[in-house]
Order: sequence, then structure tokens, then C-alpha cells
Amino acid sequence: MKALRLHAYNTNPSLDDVPEPTAVGPWDVVVKIGAAGLCRTDLHIILGQWDHIQHPKLPYTLGHENAGWVSEVGSAVTNVAVGDTVIMHPLTSCGLCPACRIGEDSHCENATFPGLNVDGGMAEYLLTNARAVVKLDPSLQPKDIAALADAGLTAYHAVRKAAPLLFPGSHALVIGTGGLGHIGIQALAAITGAEITVIDRSEAALELAKSIGAHHTVLSTGDDEALVSQIADITSGGADVVFDYVGEEGTELLTPRLMRNRGSQYVIGYGGAVNIPTIEIISREINVIGNLVGTYNDLVELMVLTAQGKVTLHTQEYALADALTAIDDLNHGRLIGRGILVP
Amino acid sequence: MKALRLHAYNTNPSLDDVPEPTAVGPWDVVVKIGAAGLCRTDLHIILGQWDHIQHPKLPYTLGHENAGWVSEVGSAVTNVAVGDTVIMHPLTSCGLCPACRIGEDSHCENATFPGLNVDGGMAEYLLTNARAVVKLDPSLQPKDIAALADAGLTAYHAVRKAAPLLFPGSHALVIGTGGLGHIGIQALAAITGAEITVIDRSEAALELAKSIGAHHTVLSTGDDEALVSQIADITSGGADVVFDYVGEEGTELLTPRLMRNRGSQYVIGYGGAVNIPTIEIISREINVIGNLVGTYNDLVELMVLTAQGKVTLHTQEYALADALTAIDDLNHGRLIGRGILVP
Amino acid sequence: MKALRLHAYNTNPSLDDVPEPTAVGPWDVVVKIGAAGLCRTDLHIILGQWDHIQHPKLPYTLGHENAGWVSEVGSAVTNVAVGDTVIMHPLTSCGLCPACRIGEDSHCENATFPGLNVDGGMAEYLLTNARAVVKLDPSLQPKDIAALADAGLTAYHAVRKAAPLLFPGSHALVIGTGGLGHIGIQALAAITGAEITVIDRSEAALELAKSIGAHHTVLSTGDDEALVSQIADITSGGADVVFDYVGEEGTELLTPRLMRNRGSQYVIGYGGAVNIPTIEIISREINVIGNLVGTYNDLVELMVLTAQGKVTLHTQEYALADALTAIDDLNHGRLIGRGILVP
Amino acid sequence: MKALRLHAYNTNPSLDDVPEPTAVGPWDVVVKIGAAGLCRTDLHIILGQWDHIQHPKLPYTLGHENAGWVSEVGSAVTNVAVGDTVIMHPLTSCGLCPACRIGEDSHCENATFPGLNVDGGMAEYLLTNARAVVKLDPSLQPKDIAALADAGLTAYHAVRKAAPLLFPGSHALVIGTGGLGHIGIQALAAITGAEITVIDRSEAALELAKSIGAHHTVLSTGDDEALVSQIADITSGGADVVFDYVGEEGTELLTPRLMRNRGSQYVIGYGGAVNIPTIEIISREINVIGNLVGTYNDLVELMVLTAQGKVTLHTQEYALADALTAIDDLNHGRLIGRGILVP
Repeated sequence: MKALRLHAYNTNPSLDDVPEPTAVGPWDVVVKIGAAGLCRTDLHIILGQWDHIQHPKLPYTLGHENAGWVSEVGSAVTNVAVGDTVIMHPLTSCGLCPACRIGEDSHCENATFPGLNVDGGMAEYLLTNARAVVKLDPSLQPKDIAALADAGLTAYHAVRKAAPLLFPGSHALVIGTGGLGHIGIQALAAITGAEITVIDRSEAALELAKSIGAHHTVLSTGDDEALVSQIADITSGGADVVFDYVGEEGTELLTPRLMRNRGSQYVIGYGGAVNIPTIEIISREINVIGNLVGTYNDLVELMVLTAQGKVTLHTQEYALADALTAIDDLNHGRLIGRGILVP
Repeated sequence: MKALRLHAYNTNPSLDDVPEPTAVGPWDVVVKIGAAGLCRTDLHIILGQWDHIQHPKLPYTLGHENAGWVSEVGSAVTNVAVGDTVIMHPLTSCGLCPACRIGEDSHCENATFPGLNVDGGMAEYLLTNARAVVKLDPSLQPKDIAALADAGLTAYHAVRKAAPLLFPGSHALVIGTGGLGHIGIQALAAITGAEITVIDRSEAALELAKSIGAHHTVLSTGDDEALVSQIADITSGGADVVFDYVGEEGTELLTPRLMRNRGSQYVIGYGGAVNIPTIEIISREINVIGNLVGTYNDLVELMVLTAQGKVTLHTQEYALADALTAIDDLNHGRLIGRGILVP
Repeated sequence: MKALRLHAYNTNPSLDDVPEPTAVGPWDVVVKIGAAGLCRTDLHIILGQWDHIQHPKLPYTLGHENAGWVSEVGSAVTNVAVGDTVIMHPLTSCGLCPACRIGEDSHCENATFPGLNVDGGMAEYLLTNARAVVKLDPSLQPKDIAALADAGLTAYHAVRKAAPLLFPGSHALVIGTGGLGHIGIQALAAITGAEITVIDRSEAALELAKSIGAHHTVLSTGDDEALVSQIADITSGGADVVFDYVGEEGTELLTPRLMRNRGSQYVIGYGGAVNIPTIEIISREINVIGNLVGTYNDLVELMVLTAQGKVTLHTQEYALADALTAIDDLNHGRLIGRGILVP
Repeated sequence: MKALRLHAYNTNPSLDDVPEPTAVGPWDVVVKIGAAGLCRTDLHIILGQWDHIQHPKLPYTLGHENAGWVSEVGSAVTNVAVGDTVIMHPLTSCGLCPACRIGEDSHCENATFPGLNVDGGMAEYLLTNARAVVKLDPSLQPKDIAALADAGLTAYHAVRKAAPLLFPGSHALVIGTGGLGHIGIQALAAITGAEITVIDRSEAALELAKSIGAHHTVLSTGDDEALVSQIADITSGGADVVFDYVGEEGTELLTPRLMRNRGSQYVIGYGGAVNIPTIEIISREINVIGNLVGTYNDLVELMVLTAQGKVTLHTQEYALADALTAIDDLNHGRLIGRGILVP
């Protein structure tokens, strides 16, 4: 089969002919790929930035946002059958370690992460396992939802964790309307009664935000004092929860000033560092909450919202054979929405 | 009556004769003071460090940890009667603002804070209000429990918030066995099934910790790497919750290294600054949780534990007339346990 | 002023001239009534069915769903001012008892219940207190929202309590689309991601249900087996939460059969009795949850949803002078929607 | 190997020679039995009372409370190794169905229940699976803890679910100090700050209750009015949570009268039927909560408490060869504590 494989860092991956994977282990599931999302993380992988974290053995196949149809199952698989449409949780969790036993799949001690440390889904077939596959409503097409497998899941996970704080009358503030943020906004509108305010540097992004559920939008022009003042006005003193989908370039430092007392900073984007005096943390009784990918159940819920039409992705489709074009487009800002590779 | 009043910053307060307070407003409560705790915050107040936060009008009476017996009640008071033994929540909350309506008394928008911004309890009588008084079990004596009103309440509040995370098999780590920490340890033993580990610089403090519920103790010698390694061994990979009762001098920076993934840093002490890269916050999915004083209900619960003998304070008693001696003793490290002023 | 007063049970109330109330106590609030909801409970009161529970002293003024404008405040009132538009929580809670301290206003030990045990709002002015008044968005008119004060609040309270169970993919089942049920459906759509199914005996009621958020509707024809089977199909094995807004005539007994294992029966309507073998309760691990009116904060949230247009009431307006006509219409099924009396 | 097998209902099981089980499937685990608990359920099984629920194929081996040492593991087992001391969760859950994905192992759609529908542990070896085995602290001996696998787990599960309601100052009421109740009392003392009151018909049982954590005990003499009055006095108006470990013979009907408003009836024992008018459920806002066995994590936590010495079982040991004597002793009330069969 064809597979987009990385042979060396800082070098373009190539479309190679490789053997199709087969279901050897009892929980193995082989999926005929319908679509694989292309993500900025793929660019970072090519640059070698994930090597020291995930230690993949090169060459290997990229692609960590995958959906398709089950083509083969191991001897012990009971939850899906050949022909089922499925989306894949990014990790193949074990079901036995303490994290798995409390449903915290992203913290599984024995997982693989296809596309990051083993062969991923930018190929005709993918090897995954029974605990990673979510069976989809037949109305959902792989190419429409593949990119929700990682980016969408991460965005949803943070909203789901914060939902109990977001009763009617509370204020949710979303920083950044990119690939994650625009899913976060839709999730907030779908599962909470909060008033939603969105900050972005782009007028176009704010227009999109309004069309998918934002009640208020604020253009970030670089004037932090003005921003703090505008948010204080809109939220009557600060947001209850700020979802920082950026996490760098100063948003991570500005966020506490956008929160009311007892508010929480949900960190999702990364790159910077949170830095708050302990006197401020205690006198305002504020919190900083980390968020990592999402659980299997989060992905199940996100697929429900997607099937109900409450969450939609903007995508741009490429043939797998045109993967290098897609990567080049992403690298040069020519890719609007999420890039999707279809074998 | 006699009252210990501050006339100017950086000058010793003096024992003055002032009129006794009376219940004028409908929810006013006048309490004959049985005991007032002396706290390091009083030293900071004398140095003027709280002036810009609380803006008291000098001269005024010190004392923010108060207990005694009700001597007069306003026209609308229904929850206590003259003669009742009571301890006072530090704030006189209003019962009408949003914070009060959800039981977050420490965030009341209309409260006074006796001893910090109005006359406190280092006197024969104190003016407080109906929403601040907790009626006590007759077995409790004001001099034994007054210091729980603020320091004990703060220590308990953090433990109470974290309790749902502290099931059997989880690990709670307490940094600092001082006035707050030694209440925190007792509270952990009383209301959670967690395994309790305590870090302190003093062998004597660790001995005390063991006697009141710590399962493990670790002496901090200044070697952070050794500390991280010891805690990892004891907790099989890090604590689920770290209670940082110090919050300065590096503990606030070391704490994340003492936590397992998905762990939480409960900030209680202050002086330093939390500083964590966002990549670490998200990849480990860790949290930082602020804690401020406690709610009225927290104080009610703490008094139940105290009446049951599950929480006890080490105290050293002084006559109110000897307040300056007590302050001097506290200033020079001669005061073991909490100082208590008895009018 | 004019007031609709009950002089004897089983006798029509009469429109009397009585003195206007005044703010005597410190937390008293006098409200110029804009509208008072007429409710089936008023019919029960006239029949004497509430006498042994609320023990009112006759004659007194009816009306327990009230909204209007503040006309006078007691000396200690800080949360509203003369002229504010307000809706009244049904109980005048004390703010001091244990229930009040945890925000459970409906369980206050010292409350009055205007319209049930003291003078209510079917009059030109009402005496209430500071802890009962919710200040409204200026866009809300008393006549549009008065009936949310009790019926709407009760419907919302149950949904709010159940919300953590109602994630995307879960099933909420509403039995009864009457005065409470139709608010419950709108609340479910506004604050949860659940799939909503509604059962009613009336096709017209089901049409309404669909227009306000129900995803599925089922006509109850008296054939329980068919109903159980239809609900099992729609919900893939039973609802996660059933909101029984009827609570009598068999719905309370049928409900457990409409639930999946681990499901919950939220009892809101009353008249019948729950009766479940303990072997069924434990082997299915199901729950029965009581619901009483709502908290002050529930009412605040419901008003937010109303101001946002997410919850609306169908009403029929009468002049206060025509109260007996309204009562007669209600008694004889001629009143569509909620009756509203306007002084 | 020797195994105690049931060949026909209403007939004593016999000690047969059967082949040892082997690990065939990838998650299979074979355990050399150290001890199997004998339970009243075994008597019910022999009488055929579970046949229509569990449909076992006779003959099969009894024993659903099992502990021992791992003797063989399937190809995919990573959480235990040969030689590990283990206790078995009663169900062999699948790890793939929705219930398993949220940690609700007792509701697994694909589980076996050894001793009830497949061969159990009253034998030299037991076949179970990787998701059922809990690795034990080496200090724990199978014969000391085997009976916690089902009875203890069920008792703990209810306490664990109720724990958030049982803060200091709240009241927990335990009905019945038998095999389950005496574990429930110890669990309450270990993980909550509640005041514990115990009702039993036996003075000796109440003495035991006091020695393991009960603060108050009340002898049930059959006078319900006296009981209601005594509990109201002790609890100042009723318990917050009543754990009904009996669930028949009237306790299930009396329980609501022993609860304060907003209280909860935790149903664990069975045989009777809960019957409460809906007007009482709503006007008091009370709840009925079902409880079924426990989760895998509950069992992990219970083993932690046991290793810490906070939960202990009273047992009477028999050789497996003397199983019929043990059954006879249990049948005739000669078995004090829990019977344990040791191969």
C-alpha cells in the first residue's frame, strides 16, 4: 500500500510502497483509512521536535488524526466489526493500568501513539486497537471528521472538564479561534449555558466565531490594557473560565487578568510559561488547569455532537498522493481550515 | 474596656481604654472576648504591610482570630443568643451578594474584616455580625480554639476542597508543619483516606507530624534532587495533591516536581511565584489551585472535628495586658505554638 | 390597595381594600406588583388542601408567583433599590440557618411563603425580603416572567440538578408538557447536550414540545407496554434521567421501566407513590431523586436564560379585577398557558 | 484438582476431581486459590434461586469470593505476573463496552461471574481475567481477605458513593452489622468525617459496632416509634445518609423516617420494596440510591484500607474438603464471622 513515511528529520516524507498491516494481536484492529488530518504537529515532527519525547524509529508513517472503515479485527475484538465506520482515539490504550481503569486513556502507561511513535494513518491502512476505535453514526464521513480525532478532541476535553463551572450567567472566554478554538466555541454553545466571548487577532476569525456561537468578540490589537478593560466590561468583572488555546506569546501571562476572582485558566495551547505570584493565587483564589488530548468517552461525545450537526469542521481535501503539496500549503499559510488527506 | 490598638505603623500598639461596642444594626452581635489569637499577620499589620490592601483607619484594635461569649444581639439575630459560646468567622459577610448566595463567604463584596480593617478582638468586647458567629459545643473553651478562626480555617479549607481527590491509595503531601500545616495534617487524617507525607526543615516538626497523623516524613535539607527522589519513592511517582503551606523560598517552584501526572498544587502559603511552562502543564495535565481563608461552613466543620478531639492546637497563653510581651516573644522566636491573648 | 383575599375555604376569594404593606424590618422589601401568576395550587388552597401544611391565618392574600418593581426597602437592604424590576423567589429565607448557609433556600428554617402562609402578590403591593428578590434585566417585563417564580423554578431546579448526568449521547426523558414540563424541555435544550424525548397524552402538547427542543416525542395512549418498547427503541435501552413532571396516575410506577440501568427517576410532580422492589433498585443500581422548588441561584440562572430568549412562557393575561373569571377559566379548562393577573 | 461442584439444585454440592483450568485467551489469568469465601448467596444458589438470573450450566464449581496466587497468564496480560498475590473482582469485565469505559465494571455487558454463571473458586485453581485481578500488598494473606471480594466490596461501594455527603457534622446511619454492615462501619470511619450511628437487633453486634468505629448504637426491639425518636435525638433531626444493609423486613420502609430532609436512603440489602408517596419525596427532597457490588477501583481502595489495618474481617477457616460442614454450619447459625474455604 501507499504510505507517507518520514525517513529523516528536516527532510520531506515520501510516499512509499509498504506492506499492509494485519491484525496479529487479539485486540488489533486494521482500518482502511478514509481520511487523515494534517496538523501543525506534523510539521514539528518533520523538524524533529518530537523525537526526544516520542522516540519513533525512522522510517515510519505519519498521521495521528485518522478515520475510516474497519477491515480486519483481532480474535478478542467485540466492539466493532469489519465494515464499521470508525474514528480513532489517538492512543491505543491498554485497559489494565490505573489510568485506564479510571477512564483517563490519555495517561495510559502502555499505549502507542500512531503517527508519533508508530506507523500512523497517512496511508491506505492503519493498525490500531479495539480500545481506540469509536464506531460512528453512518451519517458521518471519515473525511469530514478525521481532524476531530486529535485537535477537536483536545478542544472538547477542556470544555467538558470546565462545564460544571459554566452555568447560565457565567462567562466563558476563548482565546484563539484556530483549529482548536473554533471547536471549543461550538462545544461551549452545545453543552453549557455560559455566555461566550472570543478574543482573536483576526477580524475574519471573529466573524467565524460569531457565526458558530460566540455572543461577544474582541479584536486583539496588542493593547493589553484595552483588552483587560473590554473583557471586564463584557463579563462584569472577568471570566469564570478562560480557555487559552494559544498558551504562548503572552496570552498565558495575560489570562489571569481576564478572570474574575475564583476564576480558572484552562491551559490548552503551549509554548510559554504561566507565572503568577502566590499572593495573587491565594488572595483571588484562582486556578490553573492543565488539559491533555481527551478521553475515549470525550471522543464518543464529540462524535455525537458532530452527528447532531452541533460541531462542524472547515476542511480542505487533498489526495494522499498530493500530501507534499498539502504540507507545503500548510507551511506557507495557503491552507484554510484543516487539511485532510484522502488515500 | 481595654483594647490593644495600633496608632501608627512601625510602632507598638498600646492598651487603651475605649468604649464598649454595642449592637446597633439588626444583624450586629457583640461578643465578650474569651481569647484572641496572635498571628504573624499581626506583625505584618504593625509594619504597615496590609495598609494598601485593607485601608484601616488608625487607630484601631488588632485581633482577627476571636472566640468568646455572646453579650448582645441585634434585632434580627436568630441564630445565637446571649451567653452562647462562639467562634468568629474572620469576615462579617452580607448574605446578599452573589458570593454569599453560593456560600463563598470569603469573597463577600460587603464584608468587614475585624482586626484588619475595623476593630478586632484583642479587647474585652468585639462587634461582629450574625453571619460570622458559629455556636460552639459547650465543651470547647475560647482559649483552646480561637486561633482556629483564621489559621486553622485556612488550613482546613484547602484540605476540604481537595478531599474528593484523596481516596484510599492516593498520596497527600504537606509542605510545612507550622501553624497551618499541623492543622492540615490533622484534617487530612480526619476526613480522607489518603496516605500522608510531610516535608519540613525541622526534625522536631516532623516528630509532631508523625504524632498527629503523618504516615511518612521527610527532612528538607536543601538538596532538592534528593527530596524529589525521596518523595517519588514514597508516593510511587509523585503526590496526587501537594499542600504548599509555605508558598515561598522555592517550595512553590519545587512543588510540581513532587506531583504525579494529573496532580494538583494547592497554594496556601504565599510570598513567591508559581512558574510552570505551559508544555509541562498540558503534557502532565497538572493543576494549580488557589485557597483563601475558608467558608463559614468550613469553620462549622472544623469546630465539629475540634469538639470530637480530632483537631487540636498547641497554644501559649498570655493576659491581654501582656500583649506586648507576646508580640515580642513572637518576633524573637520565643513563642512555641500559637499565642493566645486572654482579656 | 386592592387585594384578592381568601376569607374561608371552599369559598371564592374577594377583591378587598386593604392597607399597603410597608418596610418595617431591616431586610423588608415592598414590591409594586407588575404581575402575579395564577396556578393550580391556588385552586387547592381555596379548597383548604394546604391548610394543614402551611397554617395560614385567614383572611389573607393569595399569589405566590410574583414580579414587579421595588417601591420601598428596609434599612439594611443593599442588593436592590427603589425602581428595580424584580422577580421574587417564593420563600423569604433567613440567611442564617444551616440550609441557607449552603444555598438551599427552599429548606430555610425561618422562611415565610407569601401566598401560602402570609399575604401574597395578587394585590397592588407585596411585602417580601431582600433575600427573595432577584433583580431583572431591564428587557424583562413582570407579566412575561412572573409565572417562572414557582412553576418555572421547580422545573428548572430538577434539570439543573441532573445536568451533570446529561452529557452528549445521554437521553433525557420528560413526562408531561404542562406548565412545568414545557419549561423543563427548554432548560434541557439550553444547558445540556442530552437527546430529549417527551411523552404526553396530547398531540398538541407534543407539537409544542418539538418546537421548543424535543428531539423525539411519544404519544401516551394508555398502552404501557407499547410505551416501554418505544422508549427503549428511541433511547437504545432506556433513559439516563426521567423527569416525571406528573408523579401520579401511574407515571411514577412506570418510570423505572423507562430508565436504563444506573438511570435516575427525578420526581417533581406528585400525588402517587414510588414503589420499587429493593432487588430491582440494587440489581439495576437505579435512583429516585426528590426535587423541591429551587434555590435562589436557580432563579437567577433561569432569569438569565429568559433574558437570553432561551426560555419563554405561554401566558394569558387578566386584570386583577377579573381574578374570579381567571380562576373560573382555570377551573373549567378554558385557560390556555399560564394565567397572569395584572393589577 | 478438587472442586466443590453443584450437580443439581436442592442437593449438596460434591467435591469432585476435575481438570485444572488453563489460560487460553489473551487476557486469561489462572489463579491458585488461597481462599474462597462462603456466603449466604451460596445457600441461595444451591436452592436454585439464582438460576433464572444467571443461567449457569450444571454441574459447575461454586465460589465467588476468591483470592490466591497467579499461576498462569494469557499472552496479553501485563498487569500481573506468575506468583503475584491477588484478589479477584467478582466480574471478568471486557474493557470495551460503555460501562467499562467509565469504570462501571459491575455493569459490563460481556462479563462472566465465576461462581454464579461459570466455574468459581471453591477449587484448587480458578480461571479469571486480567481485568478482574487486583495485585495485593505482600502483607495480605488470601485467607484473611477473600471474603472482601464480594460482600466487603458491596459494603464499601455504597460508602464510597456517599462519601461526598458525609462531611464533619453530618450523620451516617448504618442498619445491620452483619457481613456487609461491619465493613461499611469501618469504611465510614476510615474515609469520612461523619458521625456514625448503628442500628441492630443484637446487643453483641452493637458491641462490635462500637469497637470498630460507631459513635452511637441503638438496639432495635421492634418498636419503630421509639427507634425513630431515638435516631432523631442522636442525629438532631435525622441522618444525612442511611445505609440499609438489610433492605427487607420493614427496614426499607422505615428508613425514610430516619432521614432528615434532603437525606438519602442507600439501598444495599434486598428482599422488600421501597414505597414512598411522591408528595413526601418532593416536599422533603429526599433520595433513594441503588448500589450494586462495586467497581474494580473500589476493590483496589478497599485492599489499601485492609493493608493499612483500617478494615478487618472476622473469619472462620475450613479446609476445602470440609466444605459441606461449613455449609451446614452456615445453614444452622453455627458459623460466627465469615466462613473461608482453604484448598
